[in-house]
Amino acid sequence: MAKISKAACIGGGVIGGAWAARFVLAGTDTRIFDPHPEAQRLMSEVMANAERAYGMLTSAPLPVKGTLSFSESLEEAVRGADWIQESVPEKLDLKRSVLAQIDAAADPKALIGSSTSGLMPTDLQRDMRHPERMFVAHPYNPVYLLPLAELVGGKNTTRAVLEDAKVKLATIGMTGMIINKEIEAFVGDRLLEAFWREALWLIKDDICDTETLDNVIRYSFGLRWAQMGLFETYRMAGGGAGMRDFLSKYGPSLSRPWTKLTDVVDPDADLVEKIAVQSDAQSGQRGIRELERIRDQNLVGIMQALKAGDEGRGWGAGKLLAEFEAHLWKTAPKHQANPSNEALKLLEVKVPAVWIDYNGHMTEYRYTQCFADASEALLQMIGVDTDYVRSGHSYYTVESHVRLLAEARLGDALYVTAQLLPSDGKKIHTFMSLYRASDDTLLSTYEHLLLHVSSKESRSVPPLPEVMGKLKLLIEAHAVLPAPDAAGRSVGQRS
Amino acid sequence: MAKISKAACIGGGVIGGAWAARFVLAGTDTRIFDPHPEAQRLMSEVMANAERAYGMLTSAPLPVKGTLSFSESLEEAVRGADWIQESVPEKLDLKRSVLAQIDAAADPKALIGSSTSGLMPTDLQRDMRHPERMFVAHPYNPVYLLPLAELVGGKNTTRAVLEDAKVKLATIGMTGMIINKEIEAFVGDRLLEAFWREALWLIKDDICDTETLDNVIRYSFGLRWAQMGLFETYRMAGGGAGMRDFLSKYGPSLSRPWTKLTDVVDPDADLVEKIAVQSDAQSGQRGIRELERIRDQNLVGIMQALKAGDEGRGWGAGKLLAEFEAHLWKTAPKHQANPSNEALKLLEVKVPAVWIDYNGHMTEYRYTQCFADASEALLQMIGVDTDYVRSGHSYYTVESHVRLLAEARLGDALYVTAQLLPSDGKKIHTFMSLYRASDDTLLSTYEHLLLHVSSKESRSVPPLPEVMGKLKLLIEAHAVLPAPDAAGRSVGQRS
Repeated sequence: MAKISKAACIGGGVIGGAWAARFVLAGTDTRIFDPHPEAQRLMSEVMANAERAYGMLTSAPLPVKGTLSFSESLEEAVRGADWIQESVPEKLDLKRSVLAQIDAAADPKALIGSSTSGLMPTDLQRDMRHPERMFVAHPYNPVYLLPLAELVGGKNTTRAVLEDAKVKLATIGMTGMIINKEIEAFVGDRLLEAFWREALWLIKDDICDTETLDNVIRYSFGLRWAQMGLFETYRMAGGGAGMRDFLSKYGPSLSRPWTKLTDVVDPDADLVEKIAVQSDAQSGQRGIRELERIRDQNLVGIMQALKAGDEGRGWGAGKLLAEFEAHLWKTAPKHQANPSNEALKLLEVKVPAVWIDYNGHMTEYRYTQCFADASEALLQMIGVDTDYVRSGHSYYTVESHVRLLAEARLGDALYVTAQLLPSDGKKIHTFMSLYRASDDTLLSTYEHLLLHVSSKESRSVPPLPEVMGKLKLLIEAHAVLPAPDAAGRSVGQRS
Repeated sequence: MAKISKAACIGGGVIGGAWAARFVLAGTDTRIFDPHPEAQRLMSEVMANAERAYGMLTSAPLPVKGTLSFSESLEEAVRGADWIQESVPEKLDLKRSVLAQIDAAADPKALIGSSTSGLMPTDLQRDMRHPERMFVAHPYNPVYLLPLAELVGGKNTTRAVLEDAKVKLATIGMTGMIINKEIEAFVGDRLLEAFWREALWLIKDDICDTETLDNVIRYSFGLRWAQMGLFETYRMAGGGAGMRDFLSKYGPSLSRPWTKLTDVVDPDADLVEKIAVQSDAQSGQRGIRELERIRDQNLVGIMQALKAGDEGRGWGAGKLLAEFEAHLWKTAPKHQANPSNEALKLLEVKVPAVWIDYNGHMTEYRYTQCFADASEALLQMIGVDTDYVRSGHSYYTVESHVRLLAEARLGDALYVTAQLLPSDGKKIHTFMSLYRASDDTLLSTYEHLLLHVSSKESRSVPPLPEVMGKLKLLIEAHAVLPAPDAAGRSVGQRS
């Protein structure tokens, strides 16, 4: 995939800063131009959120981070960049003028995306000399986690540019959905706008309070929409007859005067006050930073659940995550081409909220998960990758022994080291150790036996020569290491 | 909590049948009246879906299932029931007449809920002699999984009845949200209606196709809304200044003519055809039953992720699930009061999709999860419950040894047996076996050492006497069992 080699973010607020975090975490050097006096502080907060979230989201090998710097001028920021993202305040005149400045200073081939949530790209690109490479790339908060960018071209944008943008976004874990025609607010915010107006009426008319409304959403269709959208969900409601049946059943309800269609609610001082008071009662016991952390942890948990969906093939946003991880594995430098006689460092991960039990500790089976992920990294390293598994070969776990020595807690950065014990290669025998990164405390050990199998023949066979070669080099290099104390230990054995 | 002792479902389609499944799985005897010739077949499909989903959703001890029967008449169905749920087609005259019949035949104190998604309870209860106990209980599809029921009273419904309904719904894993005032379509469907109209315009005007629209939802705000609703999400967008700031920023956008506010889209034949064709292209490669399975598996995964959210305390629908499980543990019969000299049967669970890896097998660490859940059941059995842990005592895992002998696959029903090996009670030493229920194949074994600790003093101490007493009885009863072959085994040891 065509990586973004240099990025520039013009405007570095909550949205622009999160774009910058995505670029940097994907290994792209990024410059920000934002004259706001608080810009650097805000960026460091967004970056911290993004890094924490990514640490929990994936144990796939993220590339070495790109550099992040603040430029003194817009011109300096965009120089040499091949993706420039504009995220300045939502005013047409301002955006037009900023985009014209970007256009004048940037490489004529550089892609220029605008984060606008409502303005039309044709209006935005009017003053540009190279408008063909300008488009809307409208993301959703938190931009560092939610994968969507709506891609909308203006009259002068070429289709090739939109396609190119889509390919490039995939390299930073996002998916570009190309919208056919430009309209104000595009698709997502049009839907949200209709929804929001109706919600305001419900509050204004005291049908319910904000907390009840939020619960109605998140206990019902909110759960559905995390994984299937409106039409796929309703297709099921139609039963075997599908969409035609559903529409013939429910189409007529459209003529009912249910929604406050023809009125525009006036968000006057009374309504603002009512909503603010109800929202304080609902959410005021937690600060914004705490809500953000909870939201991010939930999103990570949901995306990981969806990644395991459709029987391990991934579904919805979880399929996108799986594809991004496959891209990360594919583009990761193949380390350990020259095995050394040191234990391998295999995994770095931060403990997400969903790994914590009601005691505040990491749940027992999540230790096993860390070691299983580390084993996966070891297998990748010796050439047991998706293609190898597809060709009908794989290593299966036979048995393992885990000791829990100290507790991991929420947000702890962890790493795993592995030593290969003598074995014939048809079996792999490893001894792994899980450490807390902040103070190198040993938290857990894991002794593990894997067996190579032909999944077609359902029996154990030696690995293919290339894998066997890499593995033997590692086993030989580790032969000089002392045998770990706890290797060969059984449960309850006195030490 | 006040359990529902007998339930009746009048109308047993997708909605009524799923209500019946909820009742039956919560241990309530349930009668259905539905003269439709296909009613029994449909019910068995819904029940199968619900049982599969519940098996994956929770390993908490579900009560013995209630009986399910079909009645020849409405009168027979409602006799002796204390919750009657009406789910007949969405026509006011029909529902009014059915509700009047229910009213006449039912115990005057029985609660009567209507599943209507739009009709006003005041209109529905007009012909009833005891309208005070009638209300709308509007659920969401799939009713056996989504926890929400909107509770809406009519002019004659008493508040006490709504409060009672809320308490009773919690015993079947649902949460009743009481809506202040009755309006047509209540809260959820009002919001959905506004959203749906806007979506139809976007398709009609060719702004995007149904697949793009669905992806826009599920890659962005759909993920957010599975865990926080509209207002809590926007509160964060306002930053530190909260809701007032957000409203002052975005309130003015309401006056923009973005949505197709003043037009009502006509779902004419052309639009129906367009949507049907696009929906076929998007989802037609999978049948409805397959989509339902994928949806249910995703919902289970999302709810489990949310149950682990907020650092193990549960969040949103996951908190509701945790509360339901706590209720199940509390009301479960305390078995093993008289320990026998047989291995304990501790866990029954079906393998959900999120436990499956890309090989189609259950992922390694999910075996450990099964054994950890079985250990949790063992601890509950000897009195180590939430109160005990809150009082500052708990058992922590020290070490474990797992052997994987055969593969578990998606949907397999599994169970765990456990044998207690000799130990002093400060330590618990168990040997567990995981079986496939269909053919009693041994899939995995687990040897496990737990240590009792005082979490306040951070050191190991003996358990409190009541726990020690129960534990000793079990250990003594198991002393006559032969020692398991694989106990005391280390990794790689020749057998």
